[in-house]
Amino acid sequence: MRFCVFETAAGPHLGCAPDVHDEYVVDLTSDWPRDDSRLPPPADVAELAILGDAGIEVARTLARAGKTKLEIAHLSLLAPVPRPRRNVFCVGRNYREHIIEGNAARGLDTAELPKFIQLFTKATSAVIGPGATIPLHAGLTRLLDYEAELAIVIGRGGCDISEADAMSAVFGYTIVNDVTARDLQRRHDQWFKGKSLDGSCPMGPWVVHKSALADPHALSIRLWVNGELRQNSNTSQMIFKVPNIIADLSAGLTLEAGDVIATGTPSGVGYAMKPPCALQEGDVVAVEIEGIGRLENVVRDVR
Amino acid sequence: MRFCVFETAAGPHLGCAPDVHDEYVVDLTSDWPRDDSRLPPPADVAELAILGDAGIEVARTLARAGKTKLEIAHLSLLAPVPRPRRNVFCVGRNYREHIIEGNAARGLDTAELPKFIQLFTKATSAVIGPGATIPLHAGLTRLLDYEAELAIVIGRGGCDISEADAMSAVFGYTIVNDVTARDLQRRHDQWFKGKSLDGSCPMGPWVVHKSALADPHALSIRLWVNGELRQNSNTSQMIFKVPNIIADLSAGLTLEAGDVIATGTPSGVGYAMKPPCALQEGDVVAVEIEGIGRLENVVRDVR
Repeated sequence: MRFCVFETAAGPHLGCAPDVHDEYVVDLTSDWPRDDSRLPPPADVAELAILGDAGIEVARTLARAGKTKLEIAHLSLLAPVPRPRRNVFCVGRNYREHIIEGNAARGLDTAELPKFIQLFTKATSAVIGPGATIPLHAGLTRLLDYEAELAIVIGRGGCDISEADAMSAVFGYTIVNDVTARDLQRRHDQWFKGKSLDGSCPMGPWVVHKSALADPHALSIRLWVNGELRQNSNTSQMIFKVPNIIADLSAGLTLEAGDVIATGTPSGVGYAMKPPCALQEGDVVAVEIEGIGRLENVVRDVR
Repeated sequence: MRFCVFETAAGPHLGCAPDVHDEYVVDLTSDWPRDDSRLPPPADVAELAILGDAGIEVARTLARAGKTKLEIAHLSLLAPVPRPRRNVFCVGRNYREHIIEGNAARGLDTAELPKFIQLFTKATSAVIGPGATIPLHAGLTRLLDYEAELAIVIGRGGCDISEADAMSAVFGYTIVNDVTARDLQRRHDQWFKGKSLDGSCPMGPWVVHKSALADPHALSIRLWVNGELRQNSNTSQMIFKVPNIIADLSAGLTLEAGDVIATGTPSGVGYAMKPPCALQEGDVVAVEIEGIGRLENVVRDVR
């Protein structure tokens, strides 16, 4: 079962494709029963996640019934959580080869891996959907870069979630492109600003429910710029795995249903190329994660 | 005109005290006219800020009319924005003496000031009101610390706000205690985690509208632990002033009405004392900013 969010004249609607290969979605928001005030119709994946197991059961029943079917090719897709209730949580430096290339780009010859997880956030205003424009911000940055990432959507919040319980806190998985202004990231020391420019958090198009994704640590993850393969790895290479991330993040910090956590990027980013290669006007950036889908955006100097 | 938010059986209500010395507030949420769907009754300061100038005019009229008056002493006050729509924006290292003490605490002998502003965020789940408990998180951190800060509430959002226009983007000012787990702050490299434990963002009790605060850069700012004065400075000492902060933060990043921005802390934090002094069970932490009010919280090992 996978979910997407699409535009309608009445606002965003939540769609569900029972199977990865379906060419249509069921419009859950339209078909949702209106008779239970405890289960209001969800208009995005966060709203569904907040409804918990009961919401998933309704979605499953509606998806089977297939009353309002819409062809995916005719939909205008949005991010699965178009406006998160708070900043997108992000994990830094979580793939060994990316850490080595990052150190090398800064003139450091070390393969030392982080002992503790690095956590930062991206502003909610950075979130855009598949097909939306990534602004180049040419007047502000000269080093706009991409980062393909597997992202977790939280289904059941909580504080001090143990590693053993962590997988039951997951709702599902999506794709985030953690677009980064490298010069701002470095200049402002803390990463938030360089990670939070408008349009720098492409997300989606699909959230695959955890019931349809057996192992989040065995997925090929790839990114292309204009068809050239730049990142090519597997989520098996993550240093901090999904249970570690949820346990470390939720220690003393209450996670909430609908929270989105990007889990870090593999090697192959533009600033580590020789010479460093920034995104340019017209570049098409595509991310694919096995079993989840393809997230494609075009970079434009819209200012 | 100053605003607070207080608990009622029907949820949070927004109160307004026409003058700093008033002992009552007018219950704006109760008195708000129900005849204009474009101006729905605000239940907190962010909701009022979103209504723009028209909202302020209604508030002013209702405050003068004083229909539903409530004694402040009888109210249970909440944070003025109990649940921000996204993470609280924060400025790091913004007072010279604090930068020097911070460097000294890390064994560095330098008074070099930052050329660029440091920006990070605190999770929305960290926000608590005046009088609420700051959890000690004893199992997680051994160095919980305080930071008295002036905070800006944004009234008119926007992207690329110039320094010249920045003051017109301000709604008003409040107090934030940027409670920080120093060991986590350092251990996780990026500051987010050490800044975002539950209860680590006491805020309020008052938001003073900018019309009632002539100059945000001429306010005494003080913090006491159990009555002992620990921080004692003036907002005139800020390196990046309010217009700089708004201009730098909003460059390429769209600010929104109701956003809260903490502007950094002066010297006197616990980890820079000799020996370093962490918050303890039972400590009473009080922050006062001239013309805004007093924010007091007790630290408890609630786990």
